[in-house]
Amino acid sequence: MAQLFNRLAIIGVGLIGGSVALALKQAGQTGHIVGIGRNRDDLEEALRLGVVDEVADTPEAVRDADAVLLATPVGQFPAIMQAIAPHVHPQAVVTDAGSTKGDVIAAAQANLGAHLARFVPAHPIAGAEKSGVAAARAELFVGKNVVLTPLAENSAANVDKVEALWQGCGANVCRMTPQTHDAVFAAVSHLPHVLAFALVEDIARRPNADQLFSFAAGGFRDFSRIAGSSPEMWRDICLANRDAMLQELDAYTAQLAQIRGLIEAGAGAELAALFEHARNARNAWAHAQTKTNGNT
Amino acid sequence: MAQLFNRLAIIGVGLIGGSVALALKQAGQTGHIVGIGRNRDDLEEALRLGVVDEVADTPEAVRDADAVLLATPVGQFPAIMQAIAPHVHPQAVVTDAGSTKGDVIAAAQANLGAHLARFVPAHPIAGAEKSGVAAARAELFVGKNVVLTPLAENSAANVDKVEALWQGCGANVCRMTPQTHDAVFAAVSHLPHVLAFALVEDIARRPNADQLFSFAAGGFRDFSRIAGSSPEMWRDICLANRDAMLQELDAYTAQLAQIRGLIEAGAGAELAALFEHARNARNAWAHAQTKTNGNT
Repeated sequence: MAQLFNRLAIIGVGLIGGSVALALKQAGQTGHIVGIGRNRDDLEEALRLGVVDEVADTPEAVRDADAVLLATPVGQFPAIMQAIAPHVHPQAVVTDAGSTKGDVIAAAQANLGAHLARFVPAHPIAGAEKSGVAAARAELFVGKNVVLTPLAENSAANVDKVEALWQGCGANVCRMTPQTHDAVFAAVSHLPHVLAFALVEDIARRPNADQLFSFAAGGFRDFSRIAGSSPEMWRDICLANRDAMLQELDAYTAQLAQIRGLIEAGAGAELAALFEHARNARNAWAHAQTKTNGNT
Repeated sequence: MAQLFNRLAIIGVGLIGGSVALALKQAGQTGHIVGIGRNRDDLEEALRLGVVDEVADTPEAVRDADAVLLATPVGQFPAIMQAIAPHVHPQAVVTDAGSTKGDVIAAAQANLGAHLARFVPAHPIAGAEKSGVAAARAELFVGKNVVLTPLAENSAANVDKVEALWQGCGANVCRMTPQTHDAVFAAVSHLPHVLAFALVEDIARRPNADQLFSFAAGGFRDFSRIAGSSPEMWRDICLANRDAMLQELDAYTAQLAQIRGLIEAGAGAELAALFEHARNARNAWAHAQTKTNGNT
């Protein structure tokens, strides 16, 4: 079987970019891989670990690649797109691994020029606990979801090509509009992160924070784990997905106000029914996740 | 060394009651243990597993015990206290394992009569993932916190005796007022549970809930784990600790509104600073927990 790509350029060879490189190599789906980045030490490490075949710290290095993956933090996308646009091959497909899509598409519209038609945005739903190329592994995407949000400008053939790239990593690829993507992830990912940051901050800013923390136990540990995430990344996501975030915060605040009302009124039966409905939904979800060996 | 107690009565021989029995036996701190409950099968299992020496399903069985532990769900405390009051030995100490203290003390004041002076309320901060006597183990409380909330009526000798009981289980015992206890746990335990129930319910009640859940991943999993908890238990806790819960919900809602304002205003620097402050507090807490092999 022919390889998907003869030459793949990956900009940002960290956990995500490095794992794509390892996965496509293992699957025999790509020829030469060039890793592009700003930090020389990181690039050398990627080379030493055999994740990429060649490294470069200039945008010209995308030349001749028939596929380009942007895998840096999303905040760097506009500058990177502007820098690579003069050098991208006129038939290359371009994709990304950003957690938000509306803002990424706006950046592409502003900076990719004629390459926009071959830019197929993607969001792999895969681990962010560790970072850096040393954490990269070929199996990172196996069985995980990757959402494509194709543009009206994309040809079916190019969307298929990018789909094949992510399927080549072992992922389940689905497609939705950028608006739907940003709304869905505002609800199930961006909102929970903000809620966890808010709880920890709510406690940390009090005069008796030390006392409070000293009695926090397992429930607090699980709930607040995502408050250990990167402040910069989550600032970027909140601002990039601002409208959907505000909607989600309002919906959540309304839900919380309803529960507050039940507690204040001593409405035990309604409160237990609501908790039970939520528990059943959570357990059904967790059960389905376990069965499909799903996202973690 | 003399045993702490010659005869211990444990009402409710589940995870908590059973683990106290096993721990005190292992430490050689108690003589005969009688397990008291309503469900004959559960009692037989406790007997078969060697957790208790004797079982009974009537309140008279507390007679002759020099220590009585209430380890049923808190909602049953008033009726149990009323039922045992005529039979508790006039020198026995009584303690409990309830998650809230203000309401438990009110129940004791209403139902324990002269035994109130020997009732020393306690809250062991230990696992609730599994339940039932089969999950009981002697090590459950080792290195965990147990909070005592002594009453003005308690003699120092009786508080010491109850403290020795929990220390005999391997726990770190501290003392605070019932009001402080209920405020602390409203913040670090009860509030997070309600927040997790609220998030799952917020998503589960939407027309596109299935789509949303299908893209929920690891962050959601950790955050929502405690929404898998017992609806009845958390209803009871919310209502028992109503005033502190309402205060916590208001403080949290204000915190969330502040973050919403930063997102709406596009105040990236302030947002990142807030997230970073929270992340640092969370990481410092998690680090300290790991070092002390603390609560899980």
